[in-house]
Amino acid sequence: MAPGPVLTAQEDLIPYSFDGTAAISQMPGAVVFPTETAQVARLLQWANRERVAVIPRGSGSGLSGGSIPTPGSVVMSLVKMDRVLEVDRKNLTVLVETGATTEAVANAVSAANLFYPPDPGSMRISTIGGNVAENSGGLRGLKYGVTRNYVMGMEVVLPQGEVVWMGNKCVKDVAGYNLKDVFIGSEGTLGVITRVLLKLIPKPAAKKTMLATFAEMEKAAETISAIIAAQIIPCTLEFLDRTTIKCVEDYAHIGLPLDCDAIVLMETDGHPAVVAEESARMEQICRENGCTAVRVAKDDAEAVQLASARRTAFSALARVGPTTILEDVTVPRSELASMIRFIQKVAKDGGLRVGIFGHMGDGNLHPTFLTDERNHAEIEKVDRALELIVAETIRLGGTITGEHGVGLAKKKFLPQQLGEAQLRVMREVRRALDPAGILNPGKMFD
Amino acid sequence: MAPGPVLTAQEDLIPYSFDGTAAISQMPGAVVFPTETAQVARLLQWANRERVAVIPRGSGSGLSGGSIPTPGSVVMSLVKMDRVLEVDRKNLTVLVETGATTEAVANAVSAANLFYPPDPGSMRISTIGGNVAENSGGLRGLKYGVTRNYVMGMEVVLPQGEVVWMGNKCVKDVAGYNLKDVFIGSEGTLGVITRVLLKLIPKPAAKKTMLATFAEMEKAAETISAIIAAQIIPCTLEFLDRTTIKCVEDYAHIGLPLDCDAIVLMETDGHPAVVAEESARMEQICRENGCTAVRVAKDDAEAVQLASARRTAFSALARVGPTTILEDVTVPRSELASMIRFIQKVAKDGGLRVGIFGHMGDGNLHPTFLTDERNHAEIEKVDRALELIVAETIRLGGTITGEHGVGLAKKKFLPQQLGEAQLRVMREVRRALDPAGILNPGKMFD
Repeated sequence: MAPGPVLTAQEDLIPYSFDGTAAISQMPGAVVFPTETAQVARLLQWANRERVAVIPRGSGSGLSGGSIPTPGSVVMSLVKMDRVLEVDRKNLTVLVETGATTEAVANAVSAANLFYPPDPGSMRISTIGGNVAENSGGLRGLKYGVTRNYVMGMEVVLPQGEVVWMGNKCVKDVAGYNLKDVFIGSEGTLGVITRVLLKLIPKPAAKKTMLATFAEMEKAAETISAIIAAQIIPCTLEFLDRTTIKCVEDYAHIGLPLDCDAIVLMETDGHPAVVAEESARMEQICRENGCTAVRVAKDDAEAVQLASARRTAFSALARVGPTTILEDVTVPRSELASMIRFIQKVAKDGGLRVGIFGHMGDGNLHPTFLTDERNHAEIEKVDRALELIVAETIRLGGTITGEHGVGLAKKKFLPQQLGEAQLRVMREVRRALDPAGILNPGKMFD
Repeated sequence: MAPGPVLTAQEDLIPYSFDGTAAISQMPGAVVFPTETAQVARLLQWANRERVAVIPRGSGSGLSGGSIPTPGSVVMSLVKMDRVLEVDRKNLTVLVETGATTEAVANAVSAANLFYPPDPGSMRISTIGGNVAENSGGLRGLKYGVTRNYVMGMEVVLPQGEVVWMGNKCVKDVAGYNLKDVFIGSEGTLGVITRVLLKLIPKPAAKKTMLATFAEMEKAAETISAIIAAQIIPCTLEFLDRTTIKCVEDYAHIGLPLDCDAIVLMETDGHPAVVAEESARMEQICRENGCTAVRVAKDDAEAVQLASARRTAFSALARVGPTTILEDVTVPRSELASMIRFIQKVAKDGGLRVGIFGHMGDGNLHPTFLTDERNHAEIEKVDRALELIVAETIRLGGTITGEHGVGLAKKKFLPQQLGEAQLRVMREVRRALDPAGILNPGKMFD
């Protein structure tokens, strides 16, 4: 076993019995805190011998129950391996330990005038290892991609305790199967990520933030299409629906208009001349497509204020709860407006309250049901609504999860999206790597 | 078996006994030309029953022997499945059949004012399916990435004949393991790619091309570092060494200076204002770092002429031959100059002729040995030189292949780079998918 503190008392285990996902928890048998890779390897070797389940865990901010322990399992908290080891300005990379927070990494590279774009909502506390295990997204996906697009290499402890390095500082590498990309987003089921080598890009010199208001959701969606058609790829294209706007305004008092169907937050970044031109053009496109108002931030302070409308959306909805069930369906961008209308109709038909916000440029929606887990009749209605939403998502060529992962929360929907042949391949890959099935069992398709 | 023509006569099989790789060939037993996915599936089902090896093949322009048949195998030529099926302007995607040439795809999307960046050297004849199977690179890797970065989805026939769709038009998708990215670059060993959904980006509005001459390779490398340090990410940063310059000039008569150690081709693209600013800054950086001359293209015709210095490099060297052994080692960008010097020293020590060119911004070098396969003593020296180059590449944190693949040519070097644990995982993944081992056997690590 790994040295260092081992928690086993019930009261110490409680914080590790849940993550950021509503209404799911289970008690582990113990929690350990490795401080180096060799300890992770020894723990996995021991777990294989003893047939004990091991649940790797970062900060526990996940939203699909991916780090919920199975009863009696050992939670391996990786937060003590949190060093930023090397910023390489020549090769534009940063090497970090798995437990470093996303924000700590972003700040470390920012000090070198470089940029790590992925910015999941929980970036202040989420760990890089967790981001890689879940392939986390964020608000900059359309222009900059997601976590996967920045992982150049990683040190992984395989389920049986072997330590391997996948990838390197080379921009191109086609030597052998690309295992690295299977491990990214494998939700802690194929190995424990201990170090990550991330790609960086030059920090954009300028950014412009604006907020547009629409009386109809369709007009907002048409505006997005028109912006893309004008060959502009903004770094942020986020939206809030009427319910979310009201909750955000009650919570954050930003001065949002309450009589509109959609608010769209837009940001463009890059060279100052391009930013000036694109932001002017985006403002014009909003007006041409029937927005009721556009507000362009005059300075950084106002930009932060406008962006906070979107950044606080989940907290604002969660506050209304008491239980918030957050969805993560994603459709091709062209299907966005029809998907939003579908969700609103399903909620209305079931007499349910739902707030919708998300990454409009990515087609990634976060419908958030405001319910109460003690009201079993209503929870059943929510479950039925989710089933309808998932079916429609798949019908539109979408995915059941854009950035939160499958974990426990989406497990039952995965076969609908992928079909048996792909699930069989996934199970076989897992079995090949983890024949004893000790690593984060019961998740995804297990 | 698939309907349509089946070649079995010796003289018809000869063109399918080799690909673009020097000095490797083997005769297949037959060649078939499926025209639809269902035929591919039936052929694989038949091959499983009969235990016949199947070698998927595009245009045969590969440079690592990845589509060389095993004796008696069936070559499955996919060039008849070559339709461009849909350019989707709203979602910025194009759906194509596997046998469409890279150039045909680039042209189809260009007509819609969109851009498909990957441009492997053989793009006029190479197929998209081949590009995906090899994860092909090109001259725009530093800024735009490689084929992998543009594959949003694909239809694949698994080795046992099941047809699956991996991926979709969503910008984000984390539902299940990312199998798609293992198939990309799997060199026809995990499945047969039949359709590909590619991501597109807006066409850059402007481009500037320039060519700089350096008396010393180190100065060229320092210039590249200084450009990156100035936060400029050019779309092209290519170089030729002294031997290659001479061969290109003899062949193409571009007017290149012959008294220099390195020529660097640089291109920046994007918004006109940014291109103007960046190209001026790059020219200045070249001068500050001791270039002997810089030539900036005044118009498209001159840009094409300058770029042709690099585009013709391989042909120019191949003409000198009689046998050209083309390497593909890649190192972190910061190690580039030392790697070039190492290769030059190894060649000199062995009395060998080598021309070096490649993607300087990617650290991807193509040392090309000019030799004669009938001269066994010299070929042995080349083999020894390659062994030294590979060992040095790995020592510097590089990879044995940046964009050409492992195939047969690099198979013996793969264990050095990856180690046994990763190779074991790769073999297990392959066995899980292709238990009979019928698909492109004997390649990579098989």
